[in-house]
Amino acid sequence: MNIYPLKEKDKTSWEKLWQEYLTFYQTSISEKVSENTWKNILKGEQVKGFGAFVNDKLVAFVHIVIHPNTWNDTDCIYIEDLFVTANARGTGLGRALIEYIYDFASHNNCNRVYWITDEDNYQARQLYDKLARKMALVQYRYDIK
Amino acid sequence: MNIYPLKEKDKTSWEKLWQEYLTFYQTSISEKVSENTWKNILKGEQVKGFGAFVNDKLVAFVHIVIHPNTWNDTDCIYIEDLFVTANARGTGLGRALIEYIYDFASHNNCNRVYWITDEDNYQARQLYDKLARKMALVQYRYDIK
Amino acid sequence: MNIYPLKEKDKTSWEKLWQEYLTFYQTSISEKVSENTWKNILKGEQVKGFGAFVNDKLVAFVHIVIHPNTWNDTDCIYIEDLFVTANARGTGLGRALIEYIYDFASHNNCNRVYWITDEDNYQARQLYDKLARKMALVQYRYDIK
Amino acid sequence: MNIYPLKEKDKTSWEKLWQEYLTFYQTSISEKVSENTWKNILKGEQVKGFGAFVNDKLVAFVHIVIHPNTWNDTDCIYIEDLFVTANARGTGLGRALIEYIYDFASHNNCNRVYWITDEDNYQARQLYDKLARKMALVQYRYDIK
Repeated sequence: MNIYPLKEKDKTSWEKLWQEYLTFYQTSISEKVSENTWKNILKGEQVKGFGAFVNDKLVAFVHIVIHPNTWNDTDCIYIEDLFVTANARGTGLGRALIEYIYDFASHNNCNRVYWITDEDNYQARQLYDKLARKMALVQYRYDIK
Repeated sequence: MNIYPLKEKDKTSWEKLWQEYLTFYQTSISEKVSENTWKNILKGEQVKGFGAFVNDKLVAFVHIVIHPNTWNDTDCIYIEDLFVTANARGTGLGRALIEYIYDFASHNNCNRVYWITDEDNYQARQLYDKLARKMALVQYRYDIK
Repeated sequence: MNIYPLKEKDKTSWEKLWQEYLTFYQTSISEKVSENTWKNILKGEQVKGFGAFVNDKLVAFVHIVIHPNTWNDTDCIYIEDLFVTANARGTGLGRALIEYIYDFASHNNCNRVYWITDEDNYQARQLYDKLARKMALVQYRYDIK
Repeated sequence: MNIYPLKEKDKTSWEKLWQEYLTFYQTSISEKVSENTWKNILKGEQVKGFGAFVNDKLVAFVHIVIHPNTWNDTDCIYIEDLFVTANARGTGLGRALIEYIYDFASHNNCNRVYWITDEDNYQARQLYDKLARKMALVQYRYDIK
């Protein structure tokens, strides 16, 4: 298994995995938005995407958003998306991708890696509890219509 | 009461309020980082700061971080800091600042405003429950040493 | 202020307070059930009720349920109801009643006092955080129709 | 698989399972307390115990505590302990025992079955989410020394 930044040539396989991921969350996203997200990943500025490849086949991805914050003079990394295709689960890919981001953060002088997950995403949380600190925080959201 | 973007001339009063805020959270931040945060606020790109002024005196502030995300082709707004000086509390300033950010988000084509707070920050949550959706999410953090 | 076990003579004032309490929780309970609860309080076996009196007037109450448990050979005390009438709040009655139950538990060889509250009952939780340990537990319920 | 009330003859196999259960929770309980709990189960008044038997072998148990409450004139059932031996898991025994208690509650005119579990007991919660309502409640505890 190898982890690389996603590149132009990965577009088709990424799109397939991205749809699987959205289906997992019982949601869908317009093609326009997906196109824009892919463009942002290729640009690789604030948004970055990395893929896990087994026998050159993309089987998992992670997307991060890098942003400044007011309590530090270095950036934070928000893991917005993490997905392992169904038949590659249980092989340590989720953990490998998160640890890859930890290394990336460390080499790029970032101060923190963080993510959120549904309170009842029990399977994922079993892993997350081993890799990071669970915070006693509540998130509030207001969507602009 | 008026709300304006923070400007060069507000530096001294902002610094005082910023220290009160950090004291409230029983933390401290190096002068270097505070200087950098102030510089980012003045630059006003990804980080922005707004102040609430009563009789031309700064009595409250809000700092936001604007960042892209992968589920939308517009930006999100993260309210990282919100503070009302002790003797101006209970006068609606917190609510006014949050609603100001809602308007800002709407006029700047952002898709969401969100923030986090300590699970036991009961006084603030009483207000937040009225203004936004409380999410059943857990945040995980890994700090880079 | 004095705290005493509720007695026959307190019925009318208890009923009034009990209705205020149910109104606070935006609920109502049939007269039959209220009558039965009052009878159980007077019997004072598994259910007990105590009142806080200021100038001989009942202004607050606490109801407990005493029950065995499998991890100890002594009983637990569940505080099912705690209520302070609106204009007597902020005078320490809630705390006094809880501490009264702690003493009662100690003198009656009980091993624990516990209670539950709504996650967003912020005002009460401010007090509870000072008096007891907040547990990282989830309660599941199935109501028999 | 059959579910029966625990009886005198089950003592040795119950004791073995009870120890496994306590080990799972990384705790231990004095023999005196375990003896008392067993006695209460046999008495079958407020505490009751039921076992799931496969080929006449005890492989799972559930202990309940029946207690009055002030909002109803019928009793509640608290499921204090539920345990399935390691190699019998994933066969529906946990669900079967809970549903057995639902039936028991219904036939004995109880108004509710409830239980608590650790926030991070993810495996169990996956089942519980299907069988009962998760409450937005916080439990507070004060242990008498």
